[in-house]
Amino acid sequence: MISNIPTMTKVHNFSAGPGVLPAEVLKEASQAVINFNNLDLSLLEISHRGKDFIDVMEEARSLVKELLGLPSGYSVLFLGGGASLQFGMVPSNLLRANGHAAYVNTGVWASKAIKESKIIGNTKVIASSEDKNFNYIPKGFSIPNDADYLHITSNNTIYGTQYQEFPDCSIPLVCDMSSDIFSRKVDGSKFALIYAGAQKNMGPAGTTMVAVREDLLGKTERKMLTMLDYSEHIKADSMYNTPPVYPIYVSMLTMKWLKNNGGLSWIEKLNNEKAALLYNEIDRNSMFEGTTEIEDRSKMNVTFVLKNAALEAEFAKWAKEANLSGLPGHRSVGGFRASLYNALPIESVQALVDVMRAFEAKLG
Amino acid sequence: MISNIPTMTKVHNFSAGPGVLPAEVLKEASQAVINFNNLDLSLLEISHRGKDFIDVMEEARSLVKELLGLPSGYSVLFLGGGASLQFGMVPSNLLRANGHAAYVNTGVWASKAIKESKIIGNTKVIASSEDKNFNYIPKGFSIPNDADYLHITSNNTIYGTQYQEFPDCSIPLVCDMSSDIFSRKVDGSKFALIYAGAQKNMGPAGTTMVAVREDLLGKTERKMLTMLDYSEHIKADSMYNTPPVYPIYVSMLTMKWLKNNGGLSWIEKLNNEKAALLYNEIDRNSMFEGTTEIEDRSKMNVTFVLKNAALEAEFAKWAKEANLSGLPGHRSVGGFRASLYNALPIESVQALVDVMRAFEAKLG
Repeated sequence: MISNIPTMTKVHNFSAGPGVLPAEVLKEASQAVINFNNLDLSLLEISHRGKDFIDVMEEARSLVKELLGLPSGYSVLFLGGGASLQFGMVPSNLLRANGHAAYVNTGVWASKAIKESKIIGNTKVIASSEDKNFNYIPKGFSIPNDADYLHITSNNTIYGTQYQEFPDCSIPLVCDMSSDIFSRKVDGSKFALIYAGAQKNMGPAGTTMVAVREDLLGKTERKMLTMLDYSEHIKADSMYNTPPVYPIYVSMLTMKWLKNNGGLSWIEKLNNEKAALLYNEIDRNSMFEGTTEIEDRSKMNVTFVLKNAALEAEFAKWAKEANLSGLPGHRSVGGFRASLYNALPIESVQALVDVMRAFEAKLG
Repeated sequence: MISNIPTMTKVHNFSAGPGVLPAEVLKEASQAVINFNNLDLSLLEISHRGKDFIDVMEEARSLVKELLGLPSGYSVLFLGGGASLQFGMVPSNLLRANGHAAYVNTGVWASKAIKESKIIGNTKVIASSEDKNFNYIPKGFSIPNDADYLHITSNNTIYGTQYQEFPDCSIPLVCDMSSDIFSRKVDGSKFALIYAGAQKNMGPAGTTMVAVREDLLGKTERKMLTMLDYSEHIKADSMYNTPPVYPIYVSMLTMKWLKNNGGLSWIEKLNNEKAALLYNEIDRNSMFEGTTEIEDRSKMNVTFVLKNAALEAEFAKWAKEANLSGLPGHRSVGGFRASLYNALPIESVQALVDVMRAFEAKLG
């Protein structure tokens, strides 16, 4: 039974990813390792070509379509290799030999996507926030009409920024949604291709979801390895080779949990409440400040620092004593980062806010 | 606690892969989904950059070296993407622009490896058993001195054949050991590169092990995607990107189980006993026959047919009633296939033999 809102855990898990998953999902996922579907066999030791796993794969693919509101004409894949492999697969499949691709650089992951695209073909960075250590989302840039696609990164885990609105775009829009997929309502039909590593809101590490408009494929005439070719995976119903069975299963359970509780409208409201609770405290509290432009603040990864950097180690100690796990910021930004993924209960955010208040009362 | 020989399960799991895993491993793996290392967190929701998972990764890499007896100079990786991605990564990393690679074709998987190598560069098939539907292992072929490497497939899951001895080879020997790794003693130092999808003897689907001699890398000057480059993965200690955490963890547990019970000498003896029990019955029983040359018989995948093909459906029914799961043969060979992977207890083989005897007594 997968239902109910996120429940409290003993440890408040603010990990940036792999991130917190719903307790109900973990319970069912644990059981499947011993006995799956009452087969008296573990999910880990049955054929992926049998009906039991094919049903899992088809349900996972169908839940993505439903949650993202994808119209017909899209195929959904669950692949191995991580989103980092998609950095190369996207240009391999969409960037024509004489064409070029447009990228927006909003941080480490966008930069890696750009690097791989440059290995494949002509790649132009049309906007970047590198000038301010990626603490904002570029806006108002003009998009070349003749590019094969525009690639953006919807949420930037390390820097704590997020597109609040997606660019209006007449060319195919490709989006890396690894760190905020299924966190808010999106109109999936605006995108030509969406990809996301599972290990934040979708499931555990080990699989990457790709949703792609089929009419865009087969146009590059590029010779590529079969495993890099979306068309081959589509032809094989996402089973060209043995898929990462367990990560896909847990992703399916997590999407079912989301759907059964009210889907993206439900989770968006919860995520807005969680983010508001924490950002309000950061802005109110005399000891802390955010690191990003306010209008570009991420609702998934909240980055903040102590105004007095000398107190950082002390706050880290307080946080640890209060069982707040995964808070230290990425080395590129420093300070702290609270990841508020879908399965993090608002009680955990409240626990963090309580510590920030107590810290101010004592040392402010 | 990971120990003891394979225990009985209610269902006899002859699945060709993903295949049977030790019950003790599954128990510990199930627990880790709820609470890993007493962190009060699931293994599925912690950072892969934290000490707890780094320890898992390092233990997995080190167990491979120990079990295969790899001398210094080898690196071990656990990657995503499946062995099918290795079909392309091997030539990408080892096949020089003006060089060529030599392949032996022993079945479907070898053919797929050849297909991907041809996409990358000059690829020669120097021996093949295609003339007899791959029912034997080619022998006595001459190996070109000037090839960049020789690629073989140690065990052929579909056809039930297996190299009993590996070719003497003065050029680098590359081996796909996906379906018989850790099933017998091998001298790892004879190989330049060994790769294996986890989902037979090593663990669940979702990760692929690569052991490579480092001095062979960096010689092709080929421009390739970072994710395809072994050197990049080695530099990052097999964590260039988020690895498939759970499949690697369960693989580590399975290797530990193997080591704690006596390692490859122990399992080779057990596997020899299991295979002998079944092949002896196939040869003795008037109703069955094997499908491969006797000297090339696989100890992992035993393929056999009814002499009277009309009785196949009836035997399948008997097998199902006796709780023998995963026995139907691959469509390329037909008949039956019993996969006797490491974790399959000899009691399961005996159960199959008992059914074959009862079938003969009734219908022979």
